[in-house]
Amino acid sequence: MTPRDHAKPRSVGAVKPQTLHFSEPLRFRSGSVLDSYDLVYETYGTLNAEKSNAVLACHALNAAHHVAGYYADDVENVGWWDNMIGPGKPVDTEKFFVIGVNNVGGCFGSTGPGSVNPKTGKPYGSSFPVVTVEDWVDAQARLADRLGIDSFAAVMGGSLGAMQALQWTIGYPGRIRNSIVVAAAPRLSAQNIAFNEVARQAITTDPDFHGGDYYEHGVVPRRGLRLARMIGHITYLSDDAMMEKFGRALRTGTIGFHFDVDFEIESYLRHQGDKFSEYFDANTYLLITRALDYFDPAAAHGDDLAKAFAAARARFLVASFTSDWRFSPVRSREIVKALLDNRLDVSYAEIDAPHGHDAFLLDDPRYHALVRAYFDNIYAAL
Amino acid sequence: MTPRDHAKPRSVGAVKPQTLHFSEPLRFRSGSVLDSYDLVYETYGTLNAEKSNAVLACHALNAAHHVAGYYADDVENVGWWDNMIGPGKPVDTEKFFVIGVNNVGGCFGSTGPGSVNPKTGKPYGSSFPVVTVEDWVDAQARLADRLGIDSFAAVMGGSLGAMQALQWTIGYPGRIRNSIVVAAAPRLSAQNIAFNEVARQAITTDPDFHGGDYYEHGVVPRRGLRLARMIGHITYLSDDAMMEKFGRALRTGTIGFHFDVDFEIESYLRHQGDKFSEYFDANTYLLITRALDYFDPAAAHGDDLAKAFAAARARFLVASFTSDWRFSPVRSREIVKALLDNRLDVSYAEIDAPHGHDAFLLDDPRYHALVRAYFDNIYAAL
Repeated sequence: MTPRDHAKPRSVGAVKPQTLHFSEPLRFRSGSVLDSYDLVYETYGTLNAEKSNAVLACHALNAAHHVAGYYADDVENVGWWDNMIGPGKPVDTEKFFVIGVNNVGGCFGSTGPGSVNPKTGKPYGSSFPVVTVEDWVDAQARLADRLGIDSFAAVMGGSLGAMQALQWTIGYPGRIRNSIVVAAAPRLSAQNIAFNEVARQAITTDPDFHGGDYYEHGVVPRRGLRLARMIGHITYLSDDAMMEKFGRALRTGTIGFHFDVDFEIESYLRHQGDKFSEYFDANTYLLITRALDYFDPAAAHGDDLAKAFAAARARFLVASFTSDWRFSPVRSREIVKALLDNRLDVSYAEIDAPHGHDAFLLDDPRYHALVRAYFDNIYAAL
Repeated sequence: MTPRDHAKPRSVGAVKPQTLHFSEPLRFRSGSVLDSYDLVYETYGTLNAEKSNAVLACHALNAAHHVAGYYADDVENVGWWDNMIGPGKPVDTEKFFVIGVNNVGGCFGSTGPGSVNPKTGKPYGSSFPVVTVEDWVDAQARLADRLGIDSFAAVMGGSLGAMQALQWTIGYPGRIRNSIVVAAAPRLSAQNIAFNEVARQAITTDPDFHGGDYYEHGVVPRRGLRLARMIGHITYLSDDAMMEKFGRALRTGTIGFHFDVDFEIESYLRHQGDKFSEYFDANTYLLITRALDYFDPAAAHGDDLAKAFAAARARFLVASFTSDWRFSPVRSREIVKALLDNRLDVSYAEIDAPHGHDAFLLDDPRYHALVRAYFDNIYAAL
């Protein structure tokens, strides 16, 4: 261990999203083509002269390019991984140049189903291509090209973000030196797909969905999106964490013999659903859950996950959380085994944390110490 | 052990539901009153002269009074616990007189929200009282009165049915000699309530719900009920069982890049949801999930479950299944501990079964052998 001299962790401060326009067509795994598109992104820290200190932070279902810091005109809007990324934080922006990007198909500025299709003058809606993790990584690679980044010091993510960090090592093995894979699975289980399917059915059977072209009708399938988010929230938390946080606590101290809110957990879920349905796009929700379902690098190799990583050259940090029942540690160990079968350099940590899948977003001290130590080593090797 | 001479197990054969009308008002825990009501029930086997061999089989969320046998005009319609109950079966109808009853609030013949309120000439709909497990047991006790049954040899059930078997020992300790409690919990966890809440929100936010009075509008909140059932199904199966049964198998062998059915699990869930929404009443679904939420015998005793069973005198068979994540074995052990704290006679079995919560309905040999042995002992003591 080298002596540490970390500054007191602080925020990267006020940040501004940037937009790049890409006019080269993006061909999707589905065969569909997007002739041109925008990507919205943010960066934190400074790219060094060798351009060797770039880190890509990939987002999961509900987040986007706003990974760290806040907006000058909206200081409450703090990045989703702000506890992880900043000066003196585990991913230290005084050492690394960190990029967050809203993926294609998103609803926070990058081209997605709600964007206007220049060919028709109307929102893409149902005509937007079904996008895969591989497609996202392709688009991220083009962003790296434009920023002059030949190789990432690290690509990192939790959950669906971790799948992108994995896909980088498969699709662009020469352009990623470290892959940080948190709370991941090598592919969804039937149960995982089942939850996604119920969420999608909630959206697509909402009378306001209009086959995905609700924009033109001036409505939003809010009911469906709200239910989708409520279902999602249940799977993000462990049973124990939910019991700890809400238990059977009653809103008014007594049961009401009705179907309105009695229990605090009901109030919490409704509130989360309401909030989410006000800002998230339903078509994006469909696309992202489908990308989750489809990600399956082993499928092209006779279900042999080890073969999927045959070309990978990165070093890996894989971390899972004991109480995560959505992507349990067993699933991370499948990844670790496949990497070790390829004699790749893997650090694996199974972190005893009570919070369930959401733990990857929280600042558990052991988890953050692990990521900090790993990035210290990356920095030492720059 | 006494030597066994079981006949080859067979069906109870063709059965006919019966209806009893009750004109004494039923007062609910909510304070509401039903002036009169019907209960639909079935019986199998023969009540002995001493009336000491009666067994009540209590239903859970999706079932009713049709517990065993079939209908002469619908032979495919087999009772939900037919593998358990019949001549030579674990609960042997050559020895026991078994009763199944559709609970008040149900939608299979007993008075429920879809029944016509004699005061208004219209379906009860939203005006039907919110019913509790305690209320159901009160109504079951009145049925027992009418059938001349002073004391049940056993009351048995799985899941919500098991809660009724528990409540009998609390509410009518002198009228139950054995309580068979399968796949149970002493009260729902926050996560359990959360799943119920999403299901209810799916129903009540369906535009066809009309505040619960959809009957008058000639519609049914089918979309919501379908989603509720899909969510339920996920929680009835273990992750492993779902993986074993469906895995990531594709309907057509290849992914379609759309939001229609790709995976077999999607097809299964949609089919289950569609079927259910055609025959089940949405208001009944709300009532039954609320009864689940509210059941909490410890609440009246400062959350001390042992105190809740202070008056109980029955013997207990408690059984749980290792892969049941809805009501895990941990929850059954809470019940067992509370019973043992009262020095009650408890047999507990934690059965290594892969099927999840649904295991209580399946004919796992160890599970059935256990119930058979327990009922042999009950019979020996008659």
